[in-house]
Amino acid sequence: MAKKNQSNRLTAQQKENLGAIGIFGDEAKSHDVLVGKISEKALKKLEKKYPKFEFRYRTSISKEEINKALQEVDKELGQTLFVHDSNIKPDGGLIEVKDDKGFWRVILVSEAKHQGKDIENIKNGILVGKNNDQDFMVAGNAIERSHKNISEIANLMLKEAYFPYVLFLEGSNFLTKNVVVTRPNGEKLTITYNTGSLNRLDRLTAANYGMPINTNLCKNKFVKSNNRMIMLQAASIYTQGDGGHWSEAKMLKIMIEIADTSIQMLASDLFLQLTKK
Amino acid sequence: MAKKNQSNRLTAQQKENLGAIGIFGDEAKSHDVLVGKISEKALKKLEKKYPKFEFRYRTSISKEEINKALQEVDKELGQTLFVHDSNIKPDGGLIEVKDDKGFWRVILVSEAKHQGKDIENIKNGILVGKNNDQDFMVAGNAIERSHKNISEIANLMLKEAYFPYVLFLEGSNFLTKNVVVTRPNGEKLTITYNTGSLNRLDRLTAANYGMPINTNLCKNKFVKSNNRMIMLQAASIYTQGDGGHWSEAKMLKIMIEIADTSIQMLASDLFLQLTKK
Repeated sequence: MAKKNQSNRLTAQQKENLGAIGIFGDEAKSHDVLVGKISEKALKKLEKKYPKFEFRYRTSISKEEINKALQEVDKELGQTLFVHDSNIKPDGGLIEVKDDKGFWRVILVSEAKHQGKDIENIKNGILVGKNNDQDFMVAGNAIERSHKNISEIANLMLKEAYFPYVLFLEGSNFLTKNVVVTRPNGEKLTITYNTGSLNRLDRLTAANYGMPINTNLCKNKFVKSNNRMIMLQAASIYTQGDGGHWSEAKMLKIMIEIADTSIQMLASDLFLQLTKK
Repeated sequence: MAKKNQSNRLTAQQKENLGAIGIFGDEAKSHDVLVGKISEKALKKLEKKYPKFEFRYRTSISKEEINKALQEVDKELGQTLFVHDSNIKPDGGLIEVKDDKGFWRVILVSEAKHQGKDIENIKNGILVGKNNDQDFMVAGNAIERSHKNISEIANLMLKEAYFPYVLFLEGSNFLTKNVVVTRPNGEKLTITYNTGSLNRLDRLTAANYGMPINTNLCKNKFVKSNNRMIMLQAASIYTQGDGGHWSEAKMLKIMIEIADTSIQMLASDLFLQLTKK
């Protein structure tokens, strides 16, 4: 059993090393950077939409601050810090609003990930694999690292009843429908979205408890289990399921929707500012 | 801002590609395989310790089964599945006990990760880096992927009041104290455990809400926030903080401790078997 495991695992890891090219390529970088720019646009839009409130944008949050938030919930939490300046840098940064008591409350955290260049490769007539004779690259698992930042921000917001985390996905590893791609010679090739070696959406859905993707899940869900209420902090996962790129306008729209939900959830704590003449 | 981010990110990713060697090397593989073997030993030990119970071991769990468990908690959860045979394979597999109603309940899930070969390299006089002139490899971030399986198993066990997930770490990226290493020429070198380019423990502690490492956190903690009770499912993270390897005996002891806690938490549901003559 263990022997078999080892060889399975080796293959998976070898494939992963190849697949990693996708997420570290040029497409990935531009998608990364873009979300930060759009997040700053979202800030300006929110300032216009809610002129009574004060907003701020930052690119990172220290682990120390997350620990402090955890300690406020319970003094046994947030006790460990190994590297004193550890911090979390979501691609799109964090947007906050100042509440009636002067505390900054997080209303939007965004990340953007591109994984899988198969569509571009096929369009450009580029074959891949060890012998450069394959249409498809076996998908990597680097995307699984996204769970780390989601957990960190969930901890930061453990005392809130909402979780404004949005993850924008694009690339051939995140398709939700079959896509027809045309080779340079005019030949058409259909990419089957739910192929195991290609689709990596299942690697992310633990972060939204298997609730629908492309859905605003900012408002926390409370479920009952064993006579206890449990609070679920679910990431809002959005994908370009047809293999296209995210447009600025679409990302901005979703960001504002999430931020709107956060502000609504915080309304009691923004009430004095809201009702100020 | 975005420009600067991009260049930071590039560097981090380049470094990561180098650092990844650590986690995919021979040490990593043997540590991986070992935990599966020890888990099977733990099963045998539990069978002896609790002869009234029936146990089983399996190496993987399907995402479909996790979805089903989520649906039992709330029908809106566990709805998505993109690749029909998606499954989760913790390195050490899962151990379950059969309850009084005949349901299998998870009592132990184990993973083992080795990251960072600096100690071995220095001992063997191997220099690293682009020009083979450095003692230390900048640590990679592959370990962050651990959060994915933790989230999956947490979802599987959302209806339980305990979370028997144990993560065994070793390697120079997980030190908790300074380590003195001797070069082949007899020269001694001190490795400072909390160096930012080396230590990766902070990348994992979101999974235990910053509670102490090397601690059995199997029993879920319930905390109050905004007049709501919140259930925390924390992974039990154990590290070889002095740079050594895990011994079979030590891992086995911890596994049994975690499984014992699970069985105690399940005592009401094992009561008929427990009290059977």
